[in-house]
Amino acid sequence: MFDTAQHSHRRLNALTGDWILVSPHRALRPWQGQQEPPEAEQRPEYDPTCYLCPGNTRANGSVNPQYASTFVFDNDFAALQLDVPAGGLHRGLLQAESETGLARVICFSPRHDLTLPEMSAAEIRNVVEVWTREYLEIGAREDINYVQIFENKGQIMGCSNPHPHGQIWAQGTVPVEPAKESVQQASYWKEHGRSLLTDYLVTELEEKTRVVLENEHFVVLVPFWATWPFETLLLPRRHVTSIEQLTDAEKDAFADALRRLTIRYDNLFQLSFPYSAGLHQRPTDGEEHLEWHLHMHFYPPLLRSATVKKFMVGYEMLANPQRDVTPEWAAERLRAQSEEHYKTAVK
Amino acid sequence: MFDTAQHSHRRLNALTGDWILVSPHRALRPWQGQQEPPEAEQRPEYDPTCYLCPGNTRANGSVNPQYASTFVFDNDFAALQLDVPAGGLHRGLLQAESETGLARVICFSPRHDLTLPEMSAAEIRNVVEVWTREYLEIGAREDINYVQIFENKGQIMGCSNPHPHGQIWAQGTVPVEPAKESVQQASYWKEHGRSLLTDYLVTELEEKTRVVLENEHFVVLVPFWATWPFETLLLPRRHVTSIEQLTDAEKDAFADALRRLTIRYDNLFQLSFPYSAGLHQRPTDGEEHLEWHLHMHFYPPLLRSATVKKFMVGYEMLANPQRDVTPEWAAERLRAQSEEHYKTAVK
Ligand SMILES: O=P(O)(O)O[C@H]1O[C@H](CO)[C@@H](O)[C@H](O)[C@H]1O
Ligand SMILES: O=P(O)(O)O[C@H]1O[C@H](CO)[C@@H](O)[C@H](O)[C@H]1O
Repeated sequence: MFDTAQHSHRRLNALTGDWILVSPHRALRPWQGQQEPPEAEQRPEYDPTCYLCPGNTRANGSVNPQYASTFVFDNDFAALQLDVPAGGLHRGLLQAESETGLARVICFSPRHDLTLPEMSAAEIRNVVEVWTREYLEIGAREDINYVQIFENKGQIMGCSNPHPHGQIWAQGTVPVEPAKESVQQASYWKEHGRSLLTDYLVTELEEKTRVVLENEHFVVLVPFWATWPFETLLLPRRHVTSIEQLTDAEKDAFADALRRLTIRYDNLFQLSFPYSAGLHQRPTDGEEHLEWHLHMHFYPPLLRSATVKKFMVGYEMLANPQRDVTPEWAAERLRAQSEEHYKTAVK
Repeated sequence: MFDTAQHSHRRLNALTGDWILVSPHRALRPWQGQQEPPEAEQRPEYDPTCYLCPGNTRANGSVNPQYASTFVFDNDFAALQLDVPAGGLHRGLLQAESETGLARVICFSPRHDLTLPEMSAAEIRNVVEVWTREYLEIGAREDINYVQIFENKGQIMGCSNPHPHGQIWAQGTVPVEPAKESVQQASYWKEHGRSLLTDYLVTELEEKTRVVLENEHFVVLVPFWATWPFETLLLPRRHVTSIEQLTDAEKDAFADALRRLTIRYDNLFQLSFPYSAGLHQRPTDGEEHLEWHLHMHFYPPLLRSATVKKFMVGYEMLANPQRDVTPEWAAERLRAQSEEHYKTAVK
């Protein structure tokens, strides 16, 4: 009989409409390929050569303030810019449009040696507040219709500076991934009058097999359609379309969920766990977007150990995303982790 | 005035319908991030520990024949299997379907120390013949409707064995990427009565700025909508839906284009250039699929040098693929390369 724990199968990503190929047990194959270099675990609290530390000078000559909690500034090498002339190129199959936007950097802490799981609940709560403020401020601009808040953590994720920080890229059009989620959520909303993720959460809380942790207002789970081995989804229990609709108590719960999840991640392979993570929420085009349900994705690259990652290459690039372990197996491993960080845990 | 060589813009991928964000000049930002370890350039012609070399024993106990040109076998750790029981899981937003398929490995040469650009035109021509035979044989199966032929080259692309080889993953359903290309090509065919890539090629041969090399029957170009820094597209001039429709002369030209392109790639940073590459062609569901136009994609990860790659991370995973140099700039650099391999070139 067909069994998702044993047999190759496809799962539908209800949020994007795409399919993902699941090959249980393929992780058993021997690995003789690339090993990732371990990251230096010991960092100083202050690094005079870091362009994000308080008081230091950046590449373009600007001097960082002596900030005490968070610090936000415009990216010195922004991929999106506000002063792009409107225009396009339209020649048959060649279609291009100019894109207006901006990019910012958010330092999470003045301390060079910390990461989210090593920060206090109050400090993470403060990051949530900064995300809210930036989303509101940037989203209010006439020329910005989508605000992408994200963090690349770890060298393996292209992060060139270990100082704890995230980014914001915001632009005039809605990018591909949130656009797919808009379509799926809108059609669900139209048919059911409830947000897609409201109903999805009900199912997951009944099944329990993919839930990693919960608090009063947030749930963290490995989605049924997860692509990355230890991918997770953070969901508010209440249907809100964007971060500024969260109450203070909900923001506390968001920070709590972030802290507990990232500690579990670090504990999994006993290292500073790399990932890309980011918020998905309502486009800021002035519409109400009741179909949207705020959530946060975590996409970590590691598969087998601290040094062996999942390669999304040949088949995945040309044909279809594919995973080598089931989401249920991954959730079980994350549930088995302690919520005390391995660095500070009493052995 | 808006200028695609200077200003941030989006380009439409006519083959998939997705947009890509182009940020010219962003490659100028300083890079302090991860450097890839260089691969060993010297390999023996025969490696007794390689599971692909002639006469060696594989992990499952099978012994490779003393093959003299190519060798095809079933993947010992296949992600897709033929004996999966039919079935599914259908519970509201949880949707899964069992997937039948098979996976094969194709050794390109008995020589452990070679790669495509170091093989002769006749040897590459032989690989093209094997691809044709496999596509026909696997595609003829009732339970297989799509055959993905590809190669992962280099440790950085998750390739765990440097012995020159490619793979085939074939399955009952059409995966996400070719499915998108099917939709786009079908709607173009319906509207114009010509294949999308026929018309695209006409435009590219007029503009010339993105063409890398040509021969009588094939053209290699950096597509207008390229995602990866040095991504290329190999196109037969004549509209054929799949590889077995190529004439002998066209297959010769295909091998010639492959050889000249991969030599240019190796010469770019003077190393064995990593990439994932693969053929896209007509699904094997028994339909004629006149809308399909055979082509081959090359997706190389390197951006700046032999050790600095393009990271498709945070923004790219959560929002939209993004590139830091223009396709026209990349094509110019590839055109500037010699077609004599740096290892054998007389200095
Ligand atoms: O099959 P291989 O070479 O062991 O594995 C490699 O290619 C596969 C197909 O693209 C990927 O799924 C794997 O992540 C990658 O490591
Ligand atoms: O902006 P950074 O940290 O320099 O760069 C990193 O994140 C960007 C946004 O995800 C990516 O485009 C880059 O490839 C990556 O190296």
